[in-house]
Amino acid sequence: MKQKHLVNMFAALSLTLGAGFAAAASDEPIQPIKAATGINQAKAELGKKLYFEPRLSKSGFISCNSCHNLARGGTDNIPSSIGDRWQQGPIKAPTVLNSSLNVAQFWDGRAANLKEQAGGPIANPMEMGFTHTLAVNVLSSIPGYVSEFKQVFGKNKIDMDQVTEAIAEFEKTLVTPNSRFDQWLLGNENAITAEEKAGYALFKSSGCVACHNGEAVGGNSFQKMGLVEPYNTNNPAEGRVAVTGNDAERFNFKVPTLRNVELTYPYFHDGAANTLTEAVNTMGRVQLGKKFTTKENAQIVAFLKTLTGERPNITLPQLPPSADKTPRPNPFN
Amino acid sequence: MKQKHLVNMFAALSLTLGAGFAAAASDEPIQPIKAATGINQAKAELGKKLYFEPRLSKSGFISCNSCHNLARGGTDNIPSSIGDRWQQGPIKAPTVLNSSLNVAQFWDGRAANLKEQAGGPIANPMEMGFTHTLAVNVLSSIPGYVSEFKQVFGKNKIDMDQVTEAIAEFEKTLVTPNSRFDQWLLGNENAITAEEKAGYALFKSSGCVACHNGEAVGGNSFQKMGLVEPYNTNNPAEGRVAVTGNDAERFNFKVPTLRNVELTYPYFHDGAANTLTEAVNTMGRVQLGKKFTTKENAQIVAFLKTLTGERPNITLPQLPPSADKTPRPNPFN
Repeated sequence: MKQKHLVNMFAALSLTLGAGFAAAASDEPIQPIKAATGINQAKAELGKKLYFEPRLSKSGFISCNSCHNLARGGTDNIPSSIGDRWQQGPIKAPTVLNSSLNVAQFWDGRAANLKEQAGGPIANPMEMGFTHTLAVNVLSSIPGYVSEFKQVFGKNKIDMDQVTEAIAEFEKTLVTPNSRFDQWLLGNENAITAEEKAGYALFKSSGCVACHNGEAVGGNSFQKMGLVEPYNTNNPAEGRVAVTGNDAERFNFKVPTLRNVELTYPYFHDGAANTLTEAVNTMGRVQLGKKFTTKENAQIVAFLKTLTGERPNITLPQLPPSADKTPRPNPFN
Repeated sequence: MKQKHLVNMFAALSLTLGAGFAAAASDEPIQPIKAATGINQAKAELGKKLYFEPRLSKSGFISCNSCHNLARGGTDNIPSSIGDRWQQGPIKAPTVLNSSLNVAQFWDGRAANLKEQAGGPIANPMEMGFTHTLAVNVLSSIPGYVSEFKQVFGKNKIDMDQVTEAIAEFEKTLVTPNSRFDQWLLGNENAITAEEKAGYALFKSSGCVACHNGEAVGGNSFQKMGLVEPYNTNNPAEGRVAVTGNDAERFNFKVPTLRNVELTYPYFHDGAANTLTEAVNTMGRVQLGKKFTTKENAQIVAFLKTLTGERPNITLPQLPPSADKTPRPNPFN
C-alpha cells in the first residue's frame, strides 16, 4: 500500500519532470520528502500556539516543544525526557520532524496517528501531568483561544478533539525537504560527495535499508531491537508487545526515521548511543551481525548527515494571556 | 540624566513631527517606546540562539526562554520559576521585554546591565545549575558555534564575555513599541477609549505615575514595597539592601515596568497577585494609602491593558548540533 503510493507518486512526478529524473529517483529505496500540502493554515496556526502552550501542563511550564524542541531537531537531545516535577521519562523522545510520515506514533505505535498521539503527553502523569478536562477548562477560560477555536472549528465549545486535531495539523507542516541527499535523488549529481555516495552504497548493501527506507528513511515498520544479537539495555520498555499483547513482538519498536539524524542524538529508544559512530556500530552488530570497519562506519555516518533537511521556519506564536478567571498552574504542589 | 535624555529625544522628535505632536506627548510622564536601533544584527542573531540554548544548562533542558518565554510576555507566568531539578526559584521572573530600558537588572538591581545579568542564571545552582566554564566548553565543542562566534567577534576562542554580550544584544531587540497607549501619545486621539483615558487620569492623579513613568512605565528606580503599609509576604527577598548593605533600602525593589502588564501576571516580586484588579488594589493600599473604588480600579486596569505593545516577531533559531566530542548534559544526577 505504502509502496504502491510511492509508485503512483513517482509515476505522476515523472510526467512532470521527465523520464530522466524518474529513472534516477524511483529506483532508490529512499524517496525525497515532499513539502507538506493540503494544510489548513488557520488550524495549523492554532495548533502551533497549542504546541508551544505550557498551560496545557499542570505546572504551566512544560509544552510539547519542551521535549520536541523545534529549535533543535524536534527532540530534547537527552536520553529520556524531563516531565512534571522533573520526573525521568521512560524513553527517548522521538523527533516530531517528519512524524506525519510514520506508520503510527510513539516507539510502540500505540497511537494510530498524530491526532491520537497529541493527547497522550498532556494527561501522562510522568510528562505534562495534567488532565484533558483541566486542559480544556484552561483554554476555555482564555478569550483569545475561545475566539480562535470558534473561528477554526465553527463551534462554541472547545474540546480535546479540536485541541489534538489542531496540534496534529501543525505537526503535519513539520517536514524537512530538500536535504542534500534529496537534491541528489532529484538529479543533482554534485549534491553529495563521493564518500557520502560510498556510505549510501554501503547502507544499501549492508541491509540497513531493509528497515530504513521510504520517504522518512524509517518510521514505516516495527522491527525487533536486537535481531541478530540481544540488545543490552537497562531500559524496561518492551515495545510493541505492550500494545498487541503478542509475545512475538517483544522488543519490537518502530524503526526511527533517519531524516535529520545528525540533530536527533542520542540514539535508540533508550538514548544509549551518543554518537552516530556508536549507533552505526551497534546497529551493525545487533541488527545485521556485521562489524563495520572504521572507514565503512565513517562513510555511513557521512551519508547519514546528508539526510539533514530544511527545517521549517517557525515564527514563535504569541500566546493569548490568561483571564482573571483562568485556573492558575500548579508547579510545586 | 534619564529625564534629560527624554527631553533631548523629544526635542529631536518634535523637529521631525512638528510642534503639535511634541506638545501632546512630551507633556506626559509616560513616553512612547522607541524601536530598537543600533543593533548589531549578526551579534543579536547569535544571541538569539544562545537565548534559546538549553545546552547552557546542566540538564540540557532549561534555556533563558524557559523562564523568560517569548511566546508569552517574556516571563513564565508562575509566582516563582522552576530551576534545575525543579527547584523553586526565590522570586518572580521579571519580563525580558523592554528590559533594556531598566536602570539595572534583577529585582534588586544587582546587575548593572543586560550583559551582566545574562551570566547570572546560567551559573545559579537554583536556575540553570551550570558553570560558566562548562557552558563555554560546550559551546566551544560545537562547530556551528565556533564559526559563528568567530564571525561575530573575530576571535578564535569563545568566552563568557562574548556569550553574555550576544545575549544582551538580542535582548535589546525585545522592545514592544506601538501599544494603543503609545499611539494615543503620538496623537491618535481614538487609539484609547474614554474609560482608558479616565484610568490614565486616575493613574496620574493617584500617584502611581510617581514610580511608573518614562518609556517603560517603571524600571527606572528602586522603591520600597510597602511604603505606606507593610507588605505581607512569605517571600524572604529583602531587595536592594542585599546589594548595597544599606539598611534603609530593605524591601526596596526595582519598580517593574508596566509595559505589557496584561501578559506578565502574576504580579510583584513574590508573584502573589494573580490579577491586575488585585495588583491595583494592593498597590493603592500599601504604596499610596488609597482604597480605589471598583469603578476606579476597573478604569486603571483598562488603562494598563492599553500598554500591551507589539511583541517582536521571533523566528525560532535553528541551533547547531552537538559534535561527538560535545559534553552531554546531565539532567538526572
